[in-house]
Amino acid sequence: MLNKVRNEMKNQQLDGLWITDPNSLNYLFEIDIETGERFIGVYITQTSVKLVLNKLFTTNKLDIIYYYDHQDIHSIIARLTSGTKIGLDKTMQAQYALNLINNHPEKEFVNGSDCVDKLRAIKTKEQINKMIKASKLNDTIMEIIRDELEVGMTEIQIRDRIEELFYEYGSEPCFTTIIAFGDHGTDPHAIPTNRILKENESIIIDMGCKVDDYCSDMTRTYFMNSNPIQEIYDLVLEANTKAIEAIKPGVTFSDIDKVARDIITKGGYGDYFTHRLGHGIGQEVHEPYDVSASNHQKVLPGMCFSIEPGIYKPKVDGVRIEDLVYINEQGTAEVLNHVPKNKPVLKK
Amino acid sequence: MLNKVRNEMKNQQLDGLWITDPNSLNYLFEIDIETGERFIGVYITQTSVKLVLNKLFTTNKLDIIYYYDHQDIHSIIARLTSGTKIGLDKTMQAQYALNLINNHPEKEFVNGSDCVDKLRAIKTKEQINKMIKASKLNDTIMEIIRDELEVGMTEIQIRDRIEELFYEYGSEPCFTTIIAFGDHGTDPHAIPTNRILKENESIIIDMGCKVDDYCSDMTRTYFMNSNPIQEIYDLVLEANTKAIEAIKPGVTFSDIDKVARDIITKGGYGDYFTHRLGHGIGQEVHEPYDVSASNHQKVLPGMCFSIEPGIYKPKVDGVRIEDLVYINEQGTAEVLNHVPKNKPVLKK
Repeated sequence: MLNKVRNEMKNQQLDGLWITDPNSLNYLFEIDIETGERFIGVYITQTSVKLVLNKLFTTNKLDIIYYYDHQDIHSIIARLTSGTKIGLDKTMQAQYALNLINNHPEKEFVNGSDCVDKLRAIKTKEQINKMIKASKLNDTIMEIIRDELEVGMTEIQIRDRIEELFYEYGSEPCFTTIIAFGDHGTDPHAIPTNRILKENESIIIDMGCKVDDYCSDMTRTYFMNSNPIQEIYDLVLEANTKAIEAIKPGVTFSDIDKVARDIITKGGYGDYFTHRLGHGIGQEVHEPYDVSASNHQKVLPGMCFSIEPGIYKPKVDGVRIEDLVYINEQGTAEVLNHVPKNKPVLKK
Repeated sequence: MLNKVRNEMKNQQLDGLWITDPNSLNYLFEIDIETGERFIGVYITQTSVKLVLNKLFTTNKLDIIYYYDHQDIHSIIARLTSGTKIGLDKTMQAQYALNLINNHPEKEFVNGSDCVDKLRAIKTKEQINKMIKASKLNDTIMEIIRDELEVGMTEIQIRDRIEELFYEYGSEPCFTTIIAFGDHGTDPHAIPTNRILKENESIIIDMGCKVDDYCSDMTRTYFMNSNPIQEIYDLVLEANTKAIEAIKPGVTFSDIDKVARDIITKGGYGDYFTHRLGHGIGQEVHEPYDVSASNHQKVLPGMCFSIEPGIYKPKVDGVRIEDLVYINEQGTAEVLNHVPKNKPVLKK
């Protein structure tokens, strides 16, 4: 893995690369230490790898340069930063970046995260298997919840039940579960409230859990006894399925976004599809790369991402349908979620 | 509050200041939005304040510049960044900082966080009252737990019970509770395990909860039936109490650290007191400023911080004693924790 990072560094003519993102440190070196506000980082060159770590923590990984609380961490980082063109982690804090940049005008600093993000975006078979397991569990719990839904429940009640189920099945939520009834669903990141579920209302359930450090993420929209916005639901479903079908070798992320967006725009709701079509997923629920109009990268085998069109027209019930896909060796999409999407109306 | 930030900006000759830390945004503007990986920030000049926010979120605070997922956030940030000398938030991600710095060689960028951190460090009466309440609850639960301790319990069991109590009392943990028996306590950030509590072993309990968004944080060390390391305990206790007594008008953080460190060093354990004496606390459990040998700032009325000496000698039981203090108008310390420290041996 380290060799691949070094090859990417060569491609980008980087003499050195600072990695500070905890997920990247875990991915590359299996370093999994929570240091809070204290700096942790790995500096990679073609010939060395050094971990900078506060003396309060320890690991048996890599060569370690320890520092104490009273020491000047900035000068330790600066001393280690050899070379002329240096990549910084995109999530490195500005306090560290500024100190390097302002004290070393002779060096060039750039965002070097792509050297790692490119690797993280291509999942191995083992990682895909973890993603499959996490989505399978997510499916199971979505179906349990769907069958338990009843008029009179609150959003918070449903969220609590989902989180209880995650724990019961030995997992945990990997993001704040979204439950939104009716027009509350027009907020794509709705936080569950004590709102009470009524007849004919839409119910957006956006949930995900972790299995072996890998995430799942799925959204379904249901209706109690009848669906007054069939037209909107059908458009979102068509956008979801057609976008997945459009994934073929050579296609770009922006192409896929366009397939979904064109369907919703032709249907007259383009202004109400207010976000990117999807996002990469893996150890983190949102990872590079976006399925977005501005991302013209090609989709490659091993990538995992979400396809989640939605329509959020103010004062109308919200609808979103989300599946995860991974790209197989033929360059087409395998869908990780199997909870049916074509029967959203629950008769109770 | 904004006027005070602007005065600080003048003192530091900053034309503009980017604030991206969610706690600072909450502190200054009561903006409390979780945007995940999507940029959120406020740009302050002497004449304007603008919030940059993804279109997926909303607030009724400030003038907002919205952006969509497919838009180039970097150019939106750059367009707004007027002036010549600009302060960046110390926690701003390097991806945003680098884009500004590399595309604007005509501007000077520095760490501007102190303009806000200085204010956040001085608590108002109302904030102090919240801190008092949070520590009072922390005291209550520490005493419940102390009375429940029994040989045979595991570290995880005690942690779970503490967290259950926090929720029962309408609060929540504000950091991962540390429970460590015997020599496990020589890891200052020990993560609770299934280790079983034995006779004569030390039990480090480091816990904190939130009340009205403000944090508490306290450590006690107990022993079951007898204390085989009385000498170490007494040194740590003396370091804790003498450091608190040393807080007077004009004293610096490094002076206070020295009082505690000298006591432990004279006792022969200086090499085993491996961290700063304490840290600021407020909305976050660790905030500026450190009580550390390298911080020569003066202690001021309204500041809140921890005093937490410890001795961590390998293969010997660990000991740490931590109280929160706030500095009153006379410039001396009021201790926020009242759980007794002089009777660590529990007879059961």
